[in-house]
Amino acid sequence: MQQKDADFTTSEYHARISKTRSAMEAAGLDAIFVTDPSNMSWLTGYDGWSFYVHQGVILTHSGDPIWWGRGMDALGARRTVFMQHPDCIRGYDDRFVQNPDKHPMTELADIFAELGLAQARIGVEMDNYYYTAAAHGAIERALPNATIRDATGLVNWQRAVKSPQEIDYMRRAARIVEKMHARILEVAEPGLRKNDLIAEIYATGIKGADGHWGDYPAIVPMAPSGMDATAPHLTWDDRPMQKGEATFFEIAGAHKRYQCPQSRTLFLGEVPQKYLDAEAAVLDAIAAGLDQAKPGNQAQDIANAFNATLNKAGFEKDSRCGYAIGISYPPDWGERTISFRRGDTTILQAGMTFHFMPALWLDDGGLEITEPILITESGYECLCSTPRELSVKP
Amino acid sequence: MQQKDADFTTSEYHARISKTRSAMEAAGLDAIFVTDPSNMSWLTGYDGWSFYVHQGVILTHSGDPIWWGRGMDALGARRTVFMQHPDCIRGYDDRFVQNPDKHPMTELADIFAELGLAQARIGVEMDNYYYTAAAHGAIERALPNATIRDATGLVNWQRAVKSPQEIDYMRRAARIVEKMHARILEVAEPGLRKNDLIAEIYATGIKGADGHWGDYPAIVPMAPSGMDATAPHLTWDDRPMQKGEATFFEIAGAHKRYQCPQSRTLFLGEVPQKYLDAEAAVLDAIAAGLDQAKPGNQAQDIANAFNATLNKAGFEKDSRCGYAIGISYPPDWGERTISFRRGDTTILQAGMTFHFMPALWLDDGGLEITEPILITESGYECLCSTPRELSVKP
Repeated sequence: MQQKDADFTTSEYHARISKTRSAMEAAGLDAIFVTDPSNMSWLTGYDGWSFYVHQGVILTHSGDPIWWGRGMDALGARRTVFMQHPDCIRGYDDRFVQNPDKHPMTELADIFAELGLAQARIGVEMDNYYYTAAAHGAIERALPNATIRDATGLVNWQRAVKSPQEIDYMRRAARIVEKMHARILEVAEPGLRKNDLIAEIYATGIKGADGHWGDYPAIVPMAPSGMDATAPHLTWDDRPMQKGEATFFEIAGAHKRYQCPQSRTLFLGEVPQKYLDAEAAVLDAIAAGLDQAKPGNQAQDIANAFNATLNKAGFEKDSRCGYAIGISYPPDWGERTISFRRGDTTILQAGMTFHFMPALWLDDGGLEITEPILITESGYECLCSTPRELSVKP
Repeated sequence: MQQKDADFTTSEYHARISKTRSAMEAAGLDAIFVTDPSNMSWLTGYDGWSFYVHQGVILTHSGDPIWWGRGMDALGARRTVFMQHPDCIRGYDDRFVQNPDKHPMTELADIFAELGLAQARIGVEMDNYYYTAAAHGAIERALPNATIRDATGLVNWQRAVKSPQEIDYMRRAARIVEKMHARILEVAEPGLRKNDLIAEIYATGIKGADGHWGDYPAIVPMAPSGMDATAPHLTWDDRPMQKGEATFFEIAGAHKRYQCPQSRTLFLGEVPQKYLDAEAAVLDAIAAGLDQAKPGNQAQDIANAFNATLNKAGFEKDSRCGYAIGISYPPDWGERTISFRRGDTTILQAGMTFHFMPALWLDDGGLEITEPILITESGYECLCSTPRELSVKP
């Protein structure tokens, strides 16, 4: 079966695999079984909306990775993975799909046995979406002589420092999210139904920017107004936008599965003083945080500087104010490794990318002004140039 | 905190809970802990894109359900769930978010203990997305005297027969997907970049139809052409549509999280005989399958009739040809209960809704012609009126 144009060179995949094998070695693992769709894609190139059935990638210390999944998705694997040998793609029978009597993980165990790994030390992603308790139980029962260990995050951590090609894709995604924010300012007005605005946001993002197509964001656009904006993570309905309300836009541009999230806030009508105060505090706190964004500093340095400045202005944010970003699939556009919060002592390195996310939820609305950033050799670069200030329309 | 307008009456939630408690009783369970976002929503009304962190709903044999999740999402719970008492919404500290040293499930165990359930028989959704192996391990360790049992699908099965209000929402979603297919036929043409077409599909779906707003589909629109269409589940890029290629559109309309998927296929240029043959076979097989769609018949009757007719025409489909649908969140719009396949002896009942999904993947393209259906007192009703035939544009 013919392959699609690859998003990365085969040598880039080999470099990723080699990095991952060092981490496996350090963890004392003979093999890993990776179910996080982002990790599957990063290691092999696999791309498809098939993570609603059990699937994964097996990586040992020799040879190419093995893609394993539903039989019908093996066709999509052939179209997208870098591995050429047919043995590197294994499909299971459709009778194992969502069938309580037949768990596909029992078939997976046969592959491990065939690879001589029935007694091996195998790492699995215990706390990843899509690696269910039942899947784990089935693997443990089917490989009674193997040592199954937790390797949650092992591959995610290898993804932290981005390659030049990855950064290029994230820059394309940055152009896309800038365009989405610009489009919001063009069309948002009192009386516009929220779903009609979301339709514009989606269409703009997927059309893309600078000739680069838009992929689906790993989280749907969020754009709550007024009281709905006091809570994060509520999605839209058809309530019209109203004068006197703030709306925050937590959205991402995406290109070839690379995500560039950025949030901005729009106020319709005259801005109350408390929003101006919150805005001033957040802008100062962002500047203080960004000052700490440089190689050699720790992730918590950004959070501590941000929080100290915010607290001085009389505001508090309990939750973390940033996380690593890169390639991602639903339900999350974060990498689930580094967080900007007290206690995270990860050393920042050039090539790391983050969503610096200083959101404030007030008692009658929300304020989100966030920046996707790249750590450079000398400090940081904001991936987007969207004006940071609270937008205001009459 | 003020609530949003409820999508269902409180008495409808009580009826759902009562039905679920009977199933718990039959399964010998004192309580269930439900992590499937669709089940959480169906039992309580909770709606938010927060399923990327650990969360769930506790249901015992008395009192209202308890929503449990990340502290910041408790605000969204207050806006959306039917339960009024503050004790019914429990948030955990942000330090438990994506932190390998602190699993939030240990906090959950405290709530079970407080409810006097430390030694109870508790059902959990072992094979559901978002219920990870690590979450299960943490619960087992934190509740050593409880009996934790698998209750995967217990709530999903209660959802099979839809209420009149649910059917009303699905009909609205049906109007939306009809409009999406009509829009595709208006704009698709050789040279159109696929992502530009997807942008139109998304925008049309979210704008909605008949005055009813569009929600996000639980699966992104899929619209592969030519060789990409030989594999299911590949998402779009920017390759332009071409003459001589089939494109299938596997898309859903959605309203208030209720999903109405429907697929159609478009051929640009002169249709080769083998596509006409496949189309004729599928249309006949659909008719044969639908003939069996009536209360009292089994789910497999539809599959058997469909497959027998398809085979007579020289085609084969190995995978199941349908599944239950209703309320859903990513990554799947199916209910993961009833399948149209040999061996599924579930008795069809009035009020059940299905996606009858006869897709065929040929060696140089795909053909999908599918129907969302409602089982009625006397037979079935197709929820959509989109013409079934292969569409052709020059």
